[in-house]
Amino acid sequence: MQQTLKPAAEGLRTRVFQIIFESDTPLGKGFDVALIIAILASVGVVMLDSVAAFRTQYGTWFYWLEWGFTLLFTLELAVRLYCLERPFQYLRSFYGIIDVIAILPTWLMLIVPGAHSLVVVRLLRVLRIFRVLRLMQFVGEGRLLLEALRRSVRQIFLFFFSIFMLVTIFASVMYLIESPEAGFTSIPQSIYWAIVSLTTVGYGDVVPITPLGKAITVILMLIGYSIIAVPTGVFSAQVIRSIREERYSDEACPGCGHDRHEKRAKYCLQCGTWLDEESEDPNATGPQG
Amino acid sequence: MQQTLKPAAEGLRTRVFQIIFESDTPLGKGFDVALIIAILASVGVVMLDSVAAFRTQYGTWFYWLEWGFTLLFTLELAVRLYCLERPFQYLRSFYGIIDVIAILPTWLMLIVPGAHSLVVVRLLRVLRIFRVLRLMQFVGEGRLLLEALRRSVRQIFLFFFSIFMLVTIFASVMYLIESPEAGFTSIPQSIYWAIVSLTTVGYGDVVPITPLGKAITVILMLIGYSIIAVPTGVFSAQVIRSIREERYSDEACPGCGHDRHEKRAKYCLQCGTWLDEESEDPNATGPQG
Amino acid sequence: MQQTLKPAAEGLRTRVFQIIFESDTPLGKGFDVALIIAILASVGVVMLDSVAAFRTQYGTWFYWLEWGFTLLFTLELAVRLYCLERPFQYLRSFYGIIDVIAILPTWLMLIVPGAHSLVVVRLLRVLRIFRVLRLMQFVGEGRLLLEALRRSVRQIFLFFFSIFMLVTIFASVMYLIESPEAGFTSIPQSIYWAIVSLTTVGYGDVVPITPLGKAITVILMLIGYSIIAVPTGVFSAQVIRSIREERYSDEACPGCGHDRHEKRAKYCLQCGTWLDEESEDPNATGPQG
Amino acid sequence: MQQTLKPAAEGLRTRVFQIIFESDTPLGKGFDVALIIAILASVGVVMLDSVAAFRTQYGTWFYWLEWGFTLLFTLELAVRLYCLERPFQYLRSFYGIIDVIAILPTWLMLIVPGAHSLVVVRLLRVLRIFRVLRLMQFVGEGRLLLEALRRSVRQIFLFFFSIFMLVTIFASVMYLIESPEAGFTSIPQSIYWAIVSLTTVGYGDVVPITPLGKAITVILMLIGYSIIAVPTGVFSAQVIRSIREERYSDEACPGCGHDRHEKRAKYCLQCGTWLDEESEDPNATGPQG
Repeated sequence: MQQTLKPAAEGLRTRVFQIIFESDTPLGKGFDVALIIAILASVGVVMLDSVAAFRTQYGTWFYWLEWGFTLLFTLELAVRLYCLERPFQYLRSFYGIIDVIAILPTWLMLIVPGAHSLVVVRLLRVLRIFRVLRLMQFVGEGRLLLEALRRSVRQIFLFFFSIFMLVTIFASVMYLIESPEAGFTSIPQSIYWAIVSLTTVGYGDVVPITPLGKAITVILMLIGYSIIAVPTGVFSAQVIRSIREERYSDEACPGCGHDRHEKRAKYCLQCGTWLDEESEDPNATGPQG
Repeated sequence: MQQTLKPAAEGLRTRVFQIIFESDTPLGKGFDVALIIAILASVGVVMLDSVAAFRTQYGTWFYWLEWGFTLLFTLELAVRLYCLERPFQYLRSFYGIIDVIAILPTWLMLIVPGAHSLVVVRLLRVLRIFRVLRLMQFVGEGRLLLEALRRSVRQIFLFFFSIFMLVTIFASVMYLIESPEAGFTSIPQSIYWAIVSLTTVGYGDVVPITPLGKAITVILMLIGYSIIAVPTGVFSAQVIRSIREERYSDEACPGCGHDRHEKRAKYCLQCGTWLDEESEDPNATGPQG
Repeated sequence: MQQTLKPAAEGLRTRVFQIIFESDTPLGKGFDVALIIAILASVGVVMLDSVAAFRTQYGTWFYWLEWGFTLLFTLELAVRLYCLERPFQYLRSFYGIIDVIAILPTWLMLIVPGAHSLVVVRLLRVLRIFRVLRLMQFVGEGRLLLEALRRSVRQIFLFFFSIFMLVTIFASVMYLIESPEAGFTSIPQSIYWAIVSLTTVGYGDVVPITPLGKAITVILMLIGYSIIAVPTGVFSAQVIRSIREERYSDEACPGCGHDRHEKRAKYCLQCGTWLDEESEDPNATGPQG
Repeated sequence: MQQTLKPAAEGLRTRVFQIIFESDTPLGKGFDVALIIAILASVGVVMLDSVAAFRTQYGTWFYWLEWGFTLLFTLELAVRLYCLERPFQYLRSFYGIIDVIAILPTWLMLIVPGAHSLVVVRLLRVLRIFRVLRLMQFVGEGRLLLEALRRSVRQIFLFFFSIFMLVTIFASVMYLIESPEAGFTSIPQSIYWAIVSLTTVGYGDVVPITPLGKAITVILMLIGYSIIAVPTGVFSAQVIRSIREERYSDEACPGCGHDRHEKRAKYCLQCGTWLDEESEDPNATGPQG
């Protein structure tokens, strides 16, 4: 397919690709910034449109702004598909689906009149910003955090499972002790209360009334207050480990194969081989290189 | 007792034991996963049964599902006891008691007809969730966290003791300052309020009204907000220490017996003996090994 | 004064001193445990006495129990003073004052009938437990935490100062924006609200009503949610540093005076001198020691 | 301009400059402490003046105190400008603007009678304390924290951006599920609720009512409870890194220029050159120095 295009069109496609999908050229950066602004503005319009006072006053403005953004994003998606080798594969990827979701609800309103309640789905277009961020300079920071998250995900899963057990038992005990008038009408409702208390949110819509219930609540709150420590401790430790390992290079020693040296190391700590292959070992005698 | 069994039956018992009590074979793993699903489903049925709307509609379904789970767990307990050397000792262990509690309430309903109204009895079934714990004990991550918890338990006890004193003093001061109308009807009630505030839960059911009471509350809240740091700090430090010590092997030096070397160490840091016994010391002269 | 006592009486005084003030003998340990139980029980009686329902029913029981504990603590204080060299100096110390406060309110009730409101002051006797803990095995853990606290106290002071400014500015802005009907009746009241929000307590007794006020609240809550990090980070770092430094000994090298070696070090890392003065350097040749 | 002044006046200006702008002389320190007290007192007066009960009783006192502080701060600003080389440049700096804002509202009340509502702006004078702190001994601690903040600012920005997306999506889902009667009247209002829940503040003014809404709330709260970890982890790691790097000196090796050695290092870890230039290398042979 690539070969069937004329060289000029091909060159144009490559240039457009660089602007839209990459961000290392000034035009590409400008496009990314403009896209972020457009996405945020369109999300802002959907939000303001949901406020009754604004809708009655600026309803038609919002309507035309929404159409403007939809046409813009449709055009952008068309160009994006145009300069890709395999457009259908893109449409089935995560970002492709988000791109379609971003414009679909507005177009559906033309065909199905009752589709107005789908309007909220348009807010998912906020996810498109992630793609832009990924292209821009936030890669390093994000990678570090994700690396630490990935490492602690099993421990955090275990943590949530323990919380689930704790909450189930506290909730069923409170369901026995407290009356339905206090809001403990069922075990799921008790679980809602237990999580509101354990996470230290404390809405106050369901609250213990009996002294025994209050005593149990005190224990639950103190547990919640203390085990905030657990994911924090696990995650901190992993972030520190990730930062520390950035100080190590992955390059293997040509002598013994050991592959965990500090980045500034010049000699292998295992066998003393000179590591920097591009220059010469000053201690070496003779021109072996 | 073991010797009196015929070899074939003995072999069956061993195989069943491996499936039920261990999880290093594919069948054993499958059994564990099936059991976790059954336990969670049975707990889910008890929870949904407590919601009035669901009980009136699906009450009979829940009834038969409950009997199904009870028969399943009874069968499992029977098999478990069958393949153990000392079944009575198992029944007196923590997991044995949980296993009995998990099936007892439903069987009691057969004998004592009025036992169905004993909500308590049905809720004891929720304790089945503890059985999942047994299945989890093989996890490395859990061991790391438990190790860190064990190390910080004394410091965290001291922390809670200090909180208990802090809360007692703040609660008695507020009991003097605030009127019973604000909810400060007794010192225990004041303590309940103090812990709700210190843990940053903040239900809002008991709230200071007088300016002086509010000033003291501000101090209490700021203390609570800051000493979230204390268990976090202690626990993080211990997790980091646990992770770091994984870098050390426990193997003792054959020369001097020192048993805390980095895993990558090749020579004892105390006496210089070659540590890796499976290979030869490259510095050694002659074939002593 | 010490010399004027007869030897037998002097021996008794020393033995009593060891029981009451120290905890390395079985009798001393038993005394400490009994004292903690008595203190907790007497605090429990004061607490229960403040609950109206209990006071009407068990009021006289509480009255006599209170007198029992007061006589016990008075006797204990008398014995404590008896076996000290300088009893008056003890009475002016922190624990001496707490000891007097623990028994004074009950005795005052005999003389001044209206002294009943002083009853709450008796709860300060809970502080006496700290002395017992100090004697027992919690010294190490407490010292580590206090060391870390002492090191981070200046940074935490700076942190609270910044919070004070932040809260002042947010509170005065909200005082302008929100009406008194929402609860923002004065700047101090606004500050109370700001701290309730910043510390994520969130009682809900004072809540923003206007959209602008809610927007500002969102910013304040996000700041509060994030800077929970600040004291935690500072404190964690200091705990880790304290733990790490326990791995270093303070002993100076006899060769060069360098005083920061790992505890397991045998040779000075600066000049190679043999550090363990009690044994001989195996590498040394000849009997110089 | 400096040269046109007579020597005596010039000497006075320098002395005044040292007192007002620096804090390494006893007089300078005294001035700083007096200034902090004056600022805090004037802020306290503005706060108390906003309480209706105090204003009716002590209104005239507050009025004259306010004028006293204004005259004092005006005088201070005049002196400050007097002893500077380029007073206009100072007025345009951050602290210059704060100094003017601190006195402007009171003077404006003389000219514009309705300026009383500007009174709150005077609270910005609390920011002046930062200048004094900067001069005093809190520089080191603040620098360490700011260094760690500066390093983690990009990761924390990414974190807030992710929270913004999370909150947008949860808020729009809840806007669909919950009715306006529960308080979810618009998407911005839903966002307010989502942030109140995510930050674990939990006022309780907007609360889910439907079971589905409660289930989604539980997920949001658990996310909020867990990702308190993220800024904490990032920030802790950076504080630890900052503390650790204090152990390194910035001095470059005279041999190879490597500039990251432990402070106690005596020989360059890259080329073995003797680092301490003020003393002699004990290993060096001969008097080269």
